[in-house]
Amino acid sequence: MEKKLQALKHHLVEINDLRSAAALLHWDQSTYMPPGGAAARGRQIATLSRLAHEKFIDPAVGTLLEELMPYAEQLPPDSDDARLIQVTFKDYERAVRVPPDFTAELSNHQAAGYEAWIAARPANNFAAVRPLLEKTVELSRQLADFFPGYEHIADPLIDFADPGMTAATISALFAELRQELVPIVKAITEQPVADDSCLRKHYPEDKQLAFGVQVIKRFGYDFERGRQDKTHHPFMTKFSLGDVRITTRVKEHDLSEALFSTMHESGHALYEQGICQDYEGTPLASGVSAGVHESQSRLWENLVGRSWGFWNYFYPKLQDVFPEQLGSVPLETFYRAINKVERSLIRTDADEVTYNLHVMMRFDLELALLEGKLEVRDLPEAWRERFKADLGIVPPDDRDGVLQDVHWFADVVGGVFQGYTIGNILSAQFFDAALRAHPSIRDEISMGEFGTLHGWLKKNVYHHGRKYSVPELIERATGSKLTIEPYIRYLRTKYGELYAL
Amino acid sequence: MEKKLQALKHHLVEINDLRSAAALLHWDQSTYMPPGGAAARGRQIATLSRLAHEKFIDPAVGTLLEELMPYAEQLPPDSDDARLIQVTFKDYERAVRVPPDFTAELSNHQAAGYEAWIAARPANNFAAVRPLLEKTVELSRQLADFFPGYEHIADPLIDFADPGMTAATISALFAELRQELVPIVKAITEQPVADDSCLRKHYPEDKQLAFGVQVIKRFGYDFERGRQDKTHHPFMTKFSLGDVRITTRVKEHDLSEALFSTMHESGHALYEQGICQDYEGTPLASGVSAGVHESQSRLWENLVGRSWGFWNYFYPKLQDVFPEQLGSVPLETFYRAINKVERSLIRTDADEVTYNLHVMMRFDLELALLEGKLEVRDLPEAWRERFKADLGIVPPDDRDGVLQDVHWFADVVGGVFQGYTIGNILSAQFFDAALRAHPSIRDEISMGEFGTLHGWLKKNVYHHGRKYSVPELIERATGSKLTIEPYIRYLRTKYGELYAL
Repeated sequence: MEKKLQALKHHLVEINDLRSAAALLHWDQSTYMPPGGAAARGRQIATLSRLAHEKFIDPAVGTLLEELMPYAEQLPPDSDDARLIQVTFKDYERAVRVPPDFTAELSNHQAAGYEAWIAARPANNFAAVRPLLEKTVELSRQLADFFPGYEHIADPLIDFADPGMTAATISALFAELRQELVPIVKAITEQPVADDSCLRKHYPEDKQLAFGVQVIKRFGYDFERGRQDKTHHPFMTKFSLGDVRITTRVKEHDLSEALFSTMHESGHALYEQGICQDYEGTPLASGVSAGVHESQSRLWENLVGRSWGFWNYFYPKLQDVFPEQLGSVPLETFYRAINKVERSLIRTDADEVTYNLHVMMRFDLELALLEGKLEVRDLPEAWRERFKADLGIVPPDDRDGVLQDVHWFADVVGGVFQGYTIGNILSAQFFDAALRAHPSIRDEISMGEFGTLHGWLKKNVYHHGRKYSVPELIERATGSKLTIEPYIRYLRTKYGELYAL
Repeated sequence: MEKKLQALKHHLVEINDLRSAAALLHWDQSTYMPPGGAAARGRQIATLSRLAHEKFIDPAVGTLLEELMPYAEQLPPDSDDARLIQVTFKDYERAVRVPPDFTAELSNHQAAGYEAWIAARPANNFAAVRPLLEKTVELSRQLADFFPGYEHIADPLIDFADPGMTAATISALFAELRQELVPIVKAITEQPVADDSCLRKHYPEDKQLAFGVQVIKRFGYDFERGRQDKTHHPFMTKFSLGDVRITTRVKEHDLSEALFSTMHESGHALYEQGICQDYEGTPLASGVSAGVHESQSRLWENLVGRSWGFWNYFYPKLQDVFPEQLGSVPLETFYRAINKVERSLIRTDADEVTYNLHVMMRFDLELALLEGKLEVRDLPEAWRERFKADLGIVPPDDRDGVLQDVHWFADVVGGVFQGYTIGNILSAQFFDAALRAHPSIRDEISMGEFGTLHGWLKKNVYHHGRKYSVPELIERATGSKLTIEPYIRYLRTKYGELYAL
């Protein structure tokens, strides 16, 4: 059996190498590739992804796994090998259920959808993407139907990104959150909007980048095992556990853009860099879910990077870098600026309080589309209505309304948004657990030290990769199930002080 | 048959995509990869190369090719499809003759040899690599023996790099060249050595890079379909015909390093960028041989980039960039400096006159090692003797003697050096043919214009990729067989003037 396990691992490493190469092709496309490379590059990424998929659904893998599953039962239940076999078996089951022809059709449709969206959004032309989105909804339903036995048709799609969650559990979670959040948003937005003009001065690119690098080095992001480059849309990517990269974008008239995107992506990267090296090349060597991944980007960006203690230490340094722009701006003004809350149109620009309202409305609209209760043709109007109800403002057009996010147009409808809010909730739950274990963390942050926090996260979250299920991981790390309590407490405390609520 | 040809092309594109991804993994390793990525990267490149090889030697490819070969006979002999089938058939025959186990053994041995050489060269420790090199000679012989029917055991190895050439034809060519070259070297080196101290001042990196970019843009290197980055060892690489990249290295106290390496690599890249777009993704979309490839790097680096006409135009611009360093240095001094000839130890630093002596001695030593007339243990001494005889100087140690080139230690013994001198010979033959067709080229170069030369090369050389055999290509482009006459005439004219011979 040991030999069969070795054979499986060998096969998995090969698949991992193909996927890593595809990831590098994508990273290069987004960072350094000259325009002439575009045509072949799309094809190359598709070829490698297809070959990796073919290798994974090879019946020989199924045979190995079927032989190994009883063996896994005999191993200690928490052993790496037992978990590797079980996680791989679940991935395999999922992969073989979707016929290759369907995967090809979906993938071609997604590419077409992306191209159409690229043109439709600036042209404010929802009609142009409507038939494509109708097909996406249909294909998303078909995809879900390859996994029968679900309670809600969105469940299989949600399970891809956030394994173990369902439409019902998320709806309940979001309803609970909503109940707490709406009064907080209301109370804050009745106050005058904070003045963030200090962030809109001219900040030269190279100095912004250097400052961000200095910050994430202190967080513990290891530049010996990663690097940062510029792209249009910031992301984190991984080619091996020793090579986890991030990208950022700089706006010279918006200091917050690069700074917080760098911290955000470094959170994703700290997670991947912290995975147990023994898992290299196997399916365990990855973050466990969209929600847990986002919890780390949000933890470092918001709970650390937008905290008073953090800036207590870093603001004088930032003033040294930008004396003309910030020399006469008090810390408190700066702190209020980076934590400004307002009802705004664009999810990705939203503050940490209103952000979840943007996510929750998308989640509900996804469910309605999949259930057939909402037709695609009625989606723009449904968007406006829900926006008005939740945020009190109405998008002036579809460009900044229903067309703003690429997800539904280039991915599927269902399961693509909930991770952002689960991430916010979990960021506070993990942070709270770390604080309970090490109350010194707050003081350390105020001194620009992050070793204790980073160490706790590595040991309790990052190290395990995909070894434990999400509920197991949360319970092991925090001692309780997923709960909104620490998140609400965090928001109440922070914004209560900021807005004297 | 049309359908079978499509099936073959489809399969070939897939293999091409795997190889292109491996090339990108290598480019990234040499340019931007953080140190932590090294371990997994070596494995990833090996995996993709192996998968590409496995896909190519798939018996299904053999069956397709056997069916298509008679079809190719019926097509017009110069049609792209006929040539594609024939070139692919030859590649396939070559690939299937070498057993996969041998390929794996050789590849592991080469990796070990490279690692050993990396340590042995700075330590001047030939003894440490001797047993490895002995095995390399043995493996090189075994490799050749998979291709029986050769006249000389080096022939199959030479044929990999320079198809159609043999030990006998190259020996004859080199003997002829040697006879002409030795008196020229002798006459020049009896003159005082040119003063190149003007190149050794401090030249800031960014200005050097910007100047090089300006030059190769004028050559016609298309930055929309390529880019230049910094590496330890300059090279050209290609991910598709729309993405052909070069790398360079800069020495701030040696102006010639980045400048001429940039021109050299741009010559390789102009070749690849100029290949017919219809060949994208097929075995035709590549340079035809090591020698023809090197002819283009040497043509742009030397026949153009070290010519009087070229600097007549560019030197004032270079002076503008470096007024302190070059403002008071006359063009003639600079021209003599970049064309300094001297008997030196290191091949890669050698001038264009003595360079070939370095290559020819390596070629002869390779033959002797393969024939068994020279034992590896006697190689350092043989190197010193031959160096003394040919160049009149003796390397003080093995570091700058037999250990200086990586080729024998990380590749095979046999066929790895001749391309450099064939390239020099061909560079003049192609340039001469272009001048005969368009005598205006000389004047244009003096005005910083390269369109006519580049156009002629594109039409007569670059466009065809691997479609024609090397002898066909040379004959079609120049109207004659490979000949040293234009090269000797070029050297005599240029260095006759420079050294008043």
